[in-house]
Amino acid sequence: MLACRINGVDSRQLEITDRACQYGDGLFETLAVRHGQVEFLQAHLQRLAEGADRLGIPMPEESRWRDDIRAILVGRQQAVLKLMLSRGSGGRGYLAPDHPVVSRIVMLHPWPVHPPEHVEQGVRVRFCETRLAEQPRLAGIKHLNRLEQILARREWEDETIQEGLMLDTRDRVIEATMSNLFWLKGSTLHTPDLSACGVQGIMRQQIINLAPALGLDVQIDHYSRQALDEADGLFLTNSVIGLWPVQQLEERLFDPIKRIKQIQDKLDAVRLQHAESDF
Amino acid sequence: MLACRINGVDSRQLEITDRACQYGDGLFETLAVRHGQVEFLQAHLQRLAEGADRLGIPMPEESRWRDDIRAILVGRQQAVLKLMLSRGSGGRGYLAPDHPVVSRIVMLHPWPVHPPEHVEQGVRVRFCETRLAEQPRLAGIKHLNRLEQILARREWEDETIQEGLMLDTRDRVIEATMSNLFWLKGSTLHTPDLSACGVQGIMRQQIINLAPALGLDVQIDHYSRQALDEADGLFLTNSVIGLWPVQQLEERLFDPIKRIKQIQDKLDAVRLQHAESDF
Repeated sequence: MLACRINGVDSRQLEITDRACQYGDGLFETLAVRHGQVEFLQAHLQRLAEGADRLGIPMPEESRWRDDIRAILVGRQQAVLKLMLSRGSGGRGYLAPDHPVVSRIVMLHPWPVHPPEHVEQGVRVRFCETRLAEQPRLAGIKHLNRLEQILARREWEDETIQEGLMLDTRDRVIEATMSNLFWLKGSTLHTPDLSACGVQGIMRQQIINLAPALGLDVQIDHYSRQALDEADGLFLTNSVIGLWPVQQLEERLFDPIKRIKQIQDKLDAVRLQHAESDF
Repeated sequence: MLACRINGVDSRQLEITDRACQYGDGLFETLAVRHGQVEFLQAHLQRLAEGADRLGIPMPEESRWRDDIRAILVGRQQAVLKLMLSRGSGGRGYLAPDHPVVSRIVMLHPWPVHPPEHVEQGVRVRFCETRLAEQPRLAGIKHLNRLEQILARREWEDETIQEGLMLDTRDRVIEATMSNLFWLKGSTLHTPDLSACGVQGIMRQQIINLAPALGLDVQIDHYSRQALDEADGLFLTNSVIGLWPVQQLEERLFDPIKRIKQIQDKLDAVRLQHAESDF
């Protein structure tokens, strides 16, 4: 970790009584900082506010987040920015205080080094055995209860495999451990419905938004694992990696698809358009 | 909080990078300290070890826990002891380090003040709308991902209601937000199967163990909410409260049942037998 601010003060330590530590009672956002600019800050703050509303955690004023980000980013060209919001300390057991004093945490991490081939040729992906439980009250938001993803990520050690796809308990394909999943079939772009589990990624929404301009229909639905067998090509998205084509899923190899390259190029353009350096 | 030791040192702050804060990547135990003695310490350490094994977190030597408990308890007659074990700091995202340096946390909290009527006459209980998701890989263990319980506990503000029963997503009754559920029907004691969700309480196991000596059959099964309609009486258990009879569930009132009082008396005796003061 490069730096951390907690409630506007440089600090790397949290009260042990904070409900983030005790119960995972909070939310987070992971943002890309490139060329000294923060990508999709507004969209991330919006999702954080929606998550806070769902959990009943008061959302700090946007200006407080922006002040912290300005302070922590000074001079950085490329990094990963992580925002965390917890309900703070207190409460008897699970019962939260009536007027919580939230913890507003802004962390800066080094930019992860991924080989350029991941973006250009694609990545190797497997299926995970760990299932995502159906929990509509927590679906979509990026909360701090992440044991399912941790168990899924522990399933493989092969460093040539970059991601693992996760099904829910009804055998429907949902997402990957740290990214959302899309696939192309003809001119239709498919991505799973996330109303029962999964995280509504910011990049996922950008892909959904830009698809029509590329002549693609978007279909958001419940899909079995078998639906992927009919796909022309798959790809993964998240806020830091952007878009990774899937080169191999289990034993199946995919040829590069021109349309995925077009989506990638369009996404790159959108990322630049929605990057902020003026807080 | 009265006191806290982290990895054997008096401290009330955790590194923000600790995976307990970041992902709820850990476990906890809540133990009763009464008459200067810790109740069911061996059973709690055993469950903690089982949870650690499930999550792949190395379990510290038992003597380390005991050293911390001895140090933090000095002179205390009555308190709540909380043990926490997290995977510690580090790892790239969800991927845990190969050799994690765990955080071993021992906290002491004041004994909660509950009116004696809760034990003697019973408590008022409601049904929660928040469901428990089915996740066999996390079922039974006392992990740090507790947003479901927090959402459920947020559903009521009426201080005359002490607990909320939770169903799973298949409408089966599982447990209450912070306690396990039992009910009597004739001479059979029923309690839900916890293989898909719920926490295998230490007190729950004690009740299951002592039932035969009281002439009770124990049936552990999947039950619909309607199964409770046929119950003669219900009760709740956890490590701090022991046993609370249910006086009222939603609109239904229950008469006191002699058999529940017998279970309560027997449990009290077992608690005293399994209390340790020599660490």
